[in-house]
Amino acid sequence: MTLHDVSIPDGSNQSLNIAVSSNGVADIGRRITIPARCGIATRLSEGQVLSIVNPSGHQVCDFFAFAADNLTEHLSMAHLHTTLGSIFPVVGDALVSNQRSPLLTITEDTSPGVHDTVIACCDHARYRELGCDGYHDNCADNLRMALIAIGLKAPLIPAPFNIWMNVPVAADGSTSFQPPVSRAGDRISMRAEKEIIAVMSACPQDMTPVNGEGVAPGHLEFIVSNR
Amino acid sequence: MTLHDVSIPDGSNQSLNIAVSSNGVADIGRRITIPARCGIATRLSEGQVLSIVNPSGHQVCDFFAFAADNLTEHLSMAHLHTTLGSIFPVVGDALVSNQRSPLLTITEDTSPGVHDTVIACCDHARYRELGCDGYHDNCADNLRMALIAIGLKAPLIPAPFNIWMNVPVAADGSTSFQPPVSRAGDRISMRAEKEIIAVMSACPQDMTPVNGEGVAPGHLEFIVSNR
Repeated sequence: MTLHDVSIPDGSNQSLNIAVSSNGVADIGRRITIPARCGIATRLSEGQVLSIVNPSGHQVCDFFAFAADNLTEHLSMAHLHTTLGSIFPVVGDALVSNQRSPLLTITEDTSPGVHDTVIACCDHARYRELGCDGYHDNCADNLRMALIAIGLKAPLIPAPFNIWMNVPVAADGSTSFQPPVSRAGDRISMRAEKEIIAVMSACPQDMTPVNGEGVAPGHLEFIVSNR
Repeated sequence: MTLHDVSIPDGSNQSLNIAVSSNGVADIGRRITIPARCGIATRLSEGQVLSIVNPSGHQVCDFFAFAADNLTEHLSMAHLHTTLGSIFPVVGDALVSNQRSPLLTITEDTSPGVHDTVIACCDHARYRELGCDGYHDNCADNLRMALIAIGLKAPLIPAPFNIWMNVPVAADGSTSFQPPVSRAGDRISMRAEKEIIAVMSACPQDMTPVNGEGVAPGHLEFIVSNR
């Protein structure tokens, strides 16, 4: 019986080379671009606020977070559903880990608040399934590479907080992939409740309309602030 | 930075001592009891069918599955949601792994088909949160112990397929913990699509009504058959 090393990407892109710094600490107050189809990790101290901006309005951010002192503690949507009594987190909600401990709290959301918490991030297998033959950028690899770029290894690929991703769940349980309802310049801010590694992927999904209909996946921006 | 060993239980119960055999291979056709509040692992070859029976009708089974040759490949609800286009799997549906590969297919379900795929399994942290001071049996530890009992280690605690667990998701996304709607003797059968380790936990949750109102968590039964 072998254990596959889940930290190794299935391919690569520039996410390996765009780290904010060697240990993931970003300049305070600097507006940092996450290039289209790429991922970046940033280290947040307790109390720091991460603001993620959606320049086009239709770009999804696959969001992950890990406890900085133990990467096996991670933001967990399945645990969040229990804590919130909802699949839709809103301003004021704590985003909990698989230890049921708050990693972040949402402090601001200028969008209509339509985000997804039930769908896995896209990965190599997903694009194979959709008929893509070669390598396709994907959020699982972006997470892996963003961590490698700051000297860390993903111990697992958690289910993400899919910011601005619009996946309605109907009364009969059926789901569908719809374009985002967020608007150009929308921003979500989250305060770190302990030292964490946050990872953001500008979702490269261009084979379903989750990043908008008839548009290419775009970039995202983020800012780390002390307040 | 340390990586916590997630395979170590936070406490223990008889799940450590009730393995079907040292390698998890069960006698074909034997009706095996999962004692109340405990977990058992069973190894299935490709094509074998696992039938789980709910004697009381109100007992939830937290269900996990792993590829036998690589435990980092596991049944994943977040990936299943994408594959199914639904949060409710039904007869004929393949249950996929985090590699988007079918591990099992549901071949029979005598219950009304109300199962949960969005809620994490109960764990030590959940019972602390609910006000329990001492150790409380929990599905995460039952999974860990059921694997230890057949010589394996859980590399992570995946979000489970919560068979018979009734957690309606309302139009506004709100969730609630309701008693099961399954009936005494209800049975679900799943065919293994490759060699897997299946783990079943008779959920010990007695602080919410997920295992029925005003009743103690009960036992479950299962049978492995060749067909």
